[in-house]
Amino acid sequence: MQTSLLEKLIDELQCLPGVGPKTAQRMAYNLLQHKRQAGIDLAATLNKVMVEVGQCQSCRNYTENDLCDICLNPRREQQNLLCVVETVSDLAAVENSGQYSGRYFVLHGTLSPIDGIGPSELGLSELESLMSQGGVEEVILALNPSVEGEATSHYIADICKSNNVAITRIAHGIPVGGELEMVDTSTISHALMGRKQF
Amino acid sequence: MQTSLLEKLIDELQCLPGVGPKTAQRMAYNLLQHKRQAGIDLAATLNKVMVEVGQCQSCRNYTENDLCDICLNPRREQQNLLCVVETVSDLAAVENSGQYSGRYFVLHGTLSPIDGIGPSELGLSELESLMSQGGVEEVILALNPSVEGEATSHYIADICKSNNVAITRIAHGIPVGGELEMVDTSTISHALMGRKQF
Repeated sequence: MQTSLLEKLIDELQCLPGVGPKTAQRMAYNLLQHKRQAGIDLAATLNKVMVEVGQCQSCRNYTENDLCDICLNPRREQQNLLCVVETVSDLAAVENSGQYSGRYFVLHGTLSPIDGIGPSELGLSELESLMSQGGVEEVILALNPSVEGEATSHYIADICKSNNVAITRIAHGIPVGGELEMVDTSTISHALMGRKQF
Repeated sequence: MQTSLLEKLIDELQCLPGVGPKTAQRMAYNLLQHKRQAGIDLAATLNKVMVEVGQCQSCRNYTENDLCDICLNPRREQQNLLCVVETVSDLAAVENSGQYSGRYFVLHGTLSPIDGIGPSELGLSELESLMSQGGVEEVILALNPSVEGEATSHYIADICKSNNVAITRIAHGIPVGGELEMVDTSTISHALMGRKQF
């Protein structure tokens, strides 16, 4: 059928999320047939990223340098705001909205004692030292409304209070463009509780 | 948002078939978060395959050696049969059926003069020299029933006739497990024309 080296590639491609044997086979043949140079470039970049990219020493965003582009950017206007997110994907989502120009802090997870994830795994002492250094006036929590997310939010709120930093949370409610009848009951009760003067 | 190196990876991952910006981002973050070593291994194998894997000198199957495992395997019983397929994926599909133990010949395409794909791009002279060397008693055509597939089948049939080699084609008909009402009309007419004594 296929050669052993090719079999190895088809096997290893399945470490990518959402890629099974059929997709992996299609990827391997497609690259071999049409895009050898793209495959070679991809291999080089992939290796470089896996070896060189670490976490920003200030906000734990991914970067190949000591500090990430966001922390290094002096043009971001709201330097006194700090948005706490669970993952780098969440950071990217907030950043893509174009509505925020403050700093971030990436937890890379939520508190989950049963999985051995405590405050130190989430870098919460680094977060506290950021606050105690001053310059942070408001922490904006942008965690998911799961049980672990809520627990983590409360833990961070306690840190903020002991450092006299204001704390807010992004609004939960009906998604813009969402139809009311399609929205789950929990979201609707959040939307009702968070109603505003019209 | 993300670092420039990471952006480059997310960009290059999109050379894989079926991978868009969102999937590429998910793949990159997933590897960074959980599977750095798997990512490094994948990069090494991908580079090795892109650089080393070429075509088998006999059947044009992918291999990192001069001849592929199928051509080198002396245990395959039907050495006098030669199955002609369009792609290596088709070869894998026939091989996975477990019903065939002859040799293969991979065209890597079909005749398509408008795209500049003629007999030499499909290796048809290599196919003819395989036949003239002897040892091939029957050529089995396993091409897709498209216009180009039909044209290519007829071209190969002519080569077989001039070399006195028997030529057959795999049966078209109702897929096993397929429901008659779901099958397209062209397949039903093929199935009727190809009816057999019960």
